[in-house]
Amino acid sequence: MRATLVDRRNHHLFSALLYQVATAQLSPANIAAPIRHITRDQKNLTVLLGDVSRIHLDRRTIVLADGAELDYDYLIVAAGATDSYFGHDEWRPLAPGLKSLEDALTIRRRLLLAFEQAERESDPAARRDLLTFIVVGGGPTGVELAGAIGEIAHHTLARDFDHIDSRDATIVLLEGLPRILPMFDEKLAIRAVKDLERLGVTVRTGSRVTAIDAEGVNIGADRISARTVFWAAGVAASPVTRTLGDDVALDRSGRVTVERELCVPGYPEVFVVGAAATIMTPSGIPLPGVAPVAIQTGRWAAENIGRRLRGEAYVPFRYHDRGSMATIGRNRAIADIRGVRFGGFLAWLAWAGVHIFNLIGFRNRFLVAAQWLFHYVTYYRSARLITGERDEGDRG
Amino acid sequence: MRATLVDRRNHHLFSALLYQVATAQLSPANIAAPIRHITRDQKNLTVLLGDVSRIHLDRRTIVLADGAELDYDYLIVAAGATDSYFGHDEWRPLAPGLKSLEDALTIRRRLLLAFEQAERESDPAARRDLLTFIVVGGGPTGVELAGAIGEIAHHTLARDFDHIDSRDATIVLLEGLPRILPMFDEKLAIRAVKDLERLGVTVRTGSRVTAIDAEGVNIGADRISARTVFWAAGVAASPVTRTLGDDVALDRSGRVTVERELCVPGYPEVFVVGAAATIMTPSGIPLPGVAPVAIQTGRWAAENIGRRLRGEAYVPFRYHDRGSMATIGRNRAIADIRGVRFGGFLAWLAWAGVHIFNLIGFRNRFLVAAQWLFHYVTYYRSARLITGERDEGDRG
Repeated sequence: MRATLVDRRNHHLFSALLYQVATAQLSPANIAAPIRHITRDQKNLTVLLGDVSRIHLDRRTIVLADGAELDYDYLIVAAGATDSYFGHDEWRPLAPGLKSLEDALTIRRRLLLAFEQAERESDPAARRDLLTFIVVGGGPTGVELAGAIGEIAHHTLARDFDHIDSRDATIVLLEGLPRILPMFDEKLAIRAVKDLERLGVTVRTGSRVTAIDAEGVNIGADRISARTVFWAAGVAASPVTRTLGDDVALDRSGRVTVERELCVPGYPEVFVVGAAATIMTPSGIPLPGVAPVAIQTGRWAAENIGRRLRGEAYVPFRYHDRGSMATIGRNRAIADIRGVRFGGFLAWLAWAGVHIFNLIGFRNRFLVAAQWLFHYVTYYRSARLITGERDEGDRG
Repeated sequence: MRATLVDRRNHHLFSALLYQVATAQLSPANIAAPIRHITRDQKNLTVLLGDVSRIHLDRRTIVLADGAELDYDYLIVAAGATDSYFGHDEWRPLAPGLKSLEDALTIRRRLLLAFEQAERESDPAARRDLLTFIVVGGGPTGVELAGAIGEIAHHTLARDFDHIDSRDATIVLLEGLPRILPMFDEKLAIRAVKDLERLGVTVRTGSRVTAIDAEGVNIGADRISARTVFWAAGVAASPVTRTLGDDVALDRSGRVTVERELCVPGYPEVFVVGAAATIMTPSGIPLPGVAPVAIQTGRWAAENIGRRLRGEAYVPFRYHDRGSMATIGRNRAIADIRGVRFGGFLAWLAWAGVHIFNLIGFRNRFLVAAQWLFHYVTYYRSARLITGERDEGDRG
């Protein structure tokens, strides 16, 4: 048996910590590992850096952007998710999301530039708009991003400017639903709101964004002036998964609703896993697009192929729910581990342990742990760099 | 007394280690520290993120790109150097230099992409061109860059590909002068050539580049086919220093030849320091554009201003030469410390010690030392990430 891994990136990304790159706490290399290095001991695996532009289910072929074609006997599609702007793709440059290292560095640049430009702004209204940060979306990513921005404004930068007090920054977390963190128990969500407020974040629920422009955000008839807006509100399947739509039905977000064995209806040799798939539980509720689901479905699909190769039958996927966690700032988190719900410092320790453990590479684990320790003691953020070309969307 | 520090970057860069970012060994944040953080305890200092577009010596004013004007009583110009392509600015996108973090990430992307694309290339000639790397310029930067590329090809990537052997890579260091490292004793330079050859680098001296295009480099009538070319050959004063040319004489590279007190002829309130200045020693030889000269002249200019404010006279600059070092790969270097010349592992230890010591911030020192130790034991390079938009110059 030979396997080929095609990825348009040369690195595996631990996206659960992307918000820490975006908020200057970690460097990109701390949360990414070269795919070739991870897989170098797997002798029957070929790694290709390539952008898959098309999957032909009937011809059992994938086509790369440079025209190369690869045939397959079995295919696992693990193409993940991209940001969805709910039909408003014009918001993308105005409110970048957080799905790649490039996204994280764009957010970092805009965040740090906004404080720098506020320092140089003499008009009080303009200065206030420069010091207003809006995060759209109250899921774990939005909560973690808003909390980290609050910590930067209230601690990291607190002594660094002459003309502004970074603690005057307004940080608003907008959520369209009646409450944030809907996947968590309501009591934990309330605790998260309190933790966010302690970091200077205003949480506005039931607030659906209806327009974004260069000067702010509309919520129906309401308006918030702000120069910096980040997007953590919606996800959709990535473009390559959507190309499956010619052959199989996709849901509203472009995901493939897979069989319980994780294969595609009518194409038992093709599996879709992780955030590219809608995976129904026996109770009829789809699994969330989170890392544990991606890891477990990926492994299960590979095991099902192994079963078939040994002449056995596919086995329906069973999800092993190990719980959910979200972190708010430097030493607060909420955790729900099989019904055991807790928050505060203990939850943060649990969160830190799980995330360190799941990083790939002893080296990254060591460096991330060392940097968290430094940060914990000093609030210092190592990666406070404004780098990269300023783009058209930079308004800070 | 109040001081204002204007920089178009928000970070101070330890550029001696830029080549390690370009060759995936360190992350940008490891060698850069936020200026505001470094200076946060200096209460009479204001830091401005701004791009100086013009200096008016007669009006004692500097003008920023956004139109803001700042008056001064005393001015220190420490604007550093940029790459010089000797009148061939069209070579810049084809052969990027190594002066900023963005430059380093461009080099890193092209270097890693070239191996990836060679892996997918079936034509042997095209594959050979993809695996040919040319470094133009045999000063310390060129030597360090070529040595690190050799180490990547021969060690880091040696087991990572299926269709190519990264050890087949051709790495050529081109120098127009009769020998590399002209600022070092000839015996040390010969030792450096041997160390480079052990890492698979071919050193070609007396080889002046006459043309660069997308497929290779011309050296007079000679030609080397290569898809990846890096530039470490020439420096010139940065554009802002050149704006002084309306009022004072500049040398061929746009530098200001300063008085022995480091001030500008005719403008005793204006100092030019570091690589922006040509500083003549009493024996009539200009000091090299290296970090120790920049650090010492910067401090001396500030001290001269202090003397004047106390009613004392300026004192002519005296350079305290602590020696020169260059490193070649993981555990080889050459050092010339006040006439004590040595190479090999001992020189590398000295080099590592000096560079760790001069990094700003305990945290960076610790993280860089930890990563060097990892690298020393494993050859692993943490930052093997292909990131950023591919630009027009990417040909790998």
